Amino acid sequence: MSLVVVGSVALDTIETPSGKVCDALGGSAIYASLAASYFAPTKVVGVVGEDFPQPGIELLQRHGICLDGLETKQGKTFRWSGKYQNLNQADTLSTELNVFADFSPQLPPSCRSCESLLLANIHPALQLQVLNQIESYRWVACDTMNYWIDLCPELLTEVIRRVDIVFINEDEIRQYTKSHNIFSGARKLIGLGARAVVIKQGEYGSVAVFDNDLFFAPAYPVEQVKDPTGAGDAFAGGFMSYLATQSDLSKLAMRKAVRLGTVMAALNVGDFSVEGLTDLDTNKIDTMIKELQEWS
Amino acid sequence: MSLVVVGSVALDTIETPSGKVCDALGGSAIYASLAASYFAPTKVVGVVGEDFPQPGIELLQRHGICLDGLETKQGKTFRWSGKYQNLNQADTLSTELNVFADFSPQLPPSCRSCESLLLANIHPALQLQVLNQIESYRWVACDTMNYWIDLCPELLTEVIRRVDIVFINEDEIRQYTKSHNIFSGARKLIGLGARAVVIKQGEYGSVAVFDNDLFFAPAYPVEQVKDPTGAGDAFAGGFMSYLATQSDLSKLAMRKAVRLGTVMAALNVGDFSVEGLTDLDTNKIDTMIKELQEWS
Repeated sequence: MSLVVVGSVALDTIETPSGKVCDALGGSAIYASLAASYFAPTKVVGVVGEDFPQPGIELLQRHGICLDGLETKQGKTFRWSGKYQNLNQADTLSTELNVFADFSPQLPPSCRSCESLLLANIHPALQLQVLNQIESYRWVACDTMNYWIDLCPELLTEVIRRVDIVFINEDEIRQYTKSHNIFSGARKLIGLGARAVVIKQGEYGSVAVFDNDLFFAPAYPVEQVKDPTGAGDAFAGGFMSYLATQSDLSKLAMRKAVRLGTVMAALNVGDFSVEGLTDLDTNKIDTMIKELQEWS
Repeated sequence: MSLVVVGSVALDTIETPSGKVCDALGGSAIYASLAASYFAPTKVVGVVGEDFPQPGIELLQRHGICLDGLETKQGKTFRWSGKYQNLNQADTLSTELNVFADFSPQLPPSCRSCESLLLANIHPALQLQVLNQIESYRWVACDTMNYWIDLCPELLTEVIRRVDIVFINEDEIRQYTKSHNIFSGARKLIGLGARAVVIKQGEYGSVAVFDNDLFFAPAYPVEQVKDPTGAGDAFAGGFMSYLATQSDLSKLAMRKAVRLGTVMAALNVGDFSVEGLTDLDTNKIDTMIKELQEWS
């Protein structure tokens, strides 16, 4: 009942109205894996440089995350630096790809056949490369971003054709499908082959479109958003870790997966870097999921 | 089990990306009353000029709306003209107050004691004038807008102190309470004396804050928004008409009221002026309410 996450591993320097952190643990694979680690055995596939801090490795190990697929290469770890003027959109100050520039994901044997695979936000060509290595998976999902929709929409289309679930935000689905109405947009993605589309709407929550059905989930209210980085990754990680335990994409499974993703995203944005996702009390998570259900 | 709506009655000229209408039926009291008329006997209090079209009167009568409180004064009916560049915000092109300039709402005896009173969006001084005339009401609600929050926040505070329910949109609650977090803002309004605050979030739906509880409702998906004018009024009218039939502001009543308001708002924006609210099949409304519940 395990989940494999393939994505970026980064050291982030982030400034928000609430403060600043330097070279803090980040990257789509890290946010997603940590969020997932509470609900299903999680394996991460990514690349780091020789400078990747040992406490970061220990944190992942403490969360039981399997690091067979985490390659260490000569050179420095991928670095991203961004500043949030408001909490909706980061301005990228710098990107140093470093060892991530030549990332060529190789699934170790232990990652070729599991229940859930999350292709977190990386180049669609790399997502395809992973899809070509998998043997048997029950659920495969992809996330993406505006940058790839601009740069290589055809490759992204190839990915969407081959996955079960697409995570995408409302601006991105409009950009990719050229449909102003997000529901029409979702139907186009389903027409390509996806079984479910989960549209993220930031502070307003998300809506899942699947099997001629809809499920709306509000965002879990957060007193103070300190750092929105990784919210979508935490959502997708939480979501896919729940699906790893399910044999059907039932209405009920979809609802629970969305709520679980929603709560992990809320916990994530309440603190900087991955602080909001580490060493959590699972009772607290359960209570939040119940509250969310109660409120909608 | 009846509802009284006090507000503006207008002839609107509206242009949106979907088309244009001239001197069409509008105003907060009209949108709210028509939406309410499907669920509770509804009485409208407002003023029109001698030029108010007879088909408009007949439409209200056909919906069983009591017009005892609709005064006809010498002069022309209030006119508003607006253009929507996008569907979130209208640019006002012209406002001719006409007979509305001297509107001084007088409740006829039949409107002084009912179940529900909606003080739709008009000057808070007029809302207070109505509050000074009522004798016995179970539920009193007010709506408002950014213009009054700018112009006379103290008068609005007086209104909020004296009502049970406040309808307000997310920008307005931030503006009025100076709190970025809408939930903290709602708690401030509750601190002033309101029992429930319903925060409208446009295409994202709404959230009701009451009795240390929350209820999130998504917007009902609309294929094509033709004219967003009156969406908030239709919401409030639908909401308050349901409360007119309820003796308690229970969790269940609040949920049903919000869903009913949500569906009436969706029906309203699907066509120009009040076209989306007229001569509706109540089975269709019931189905939409059930769908909304099913999807969240």
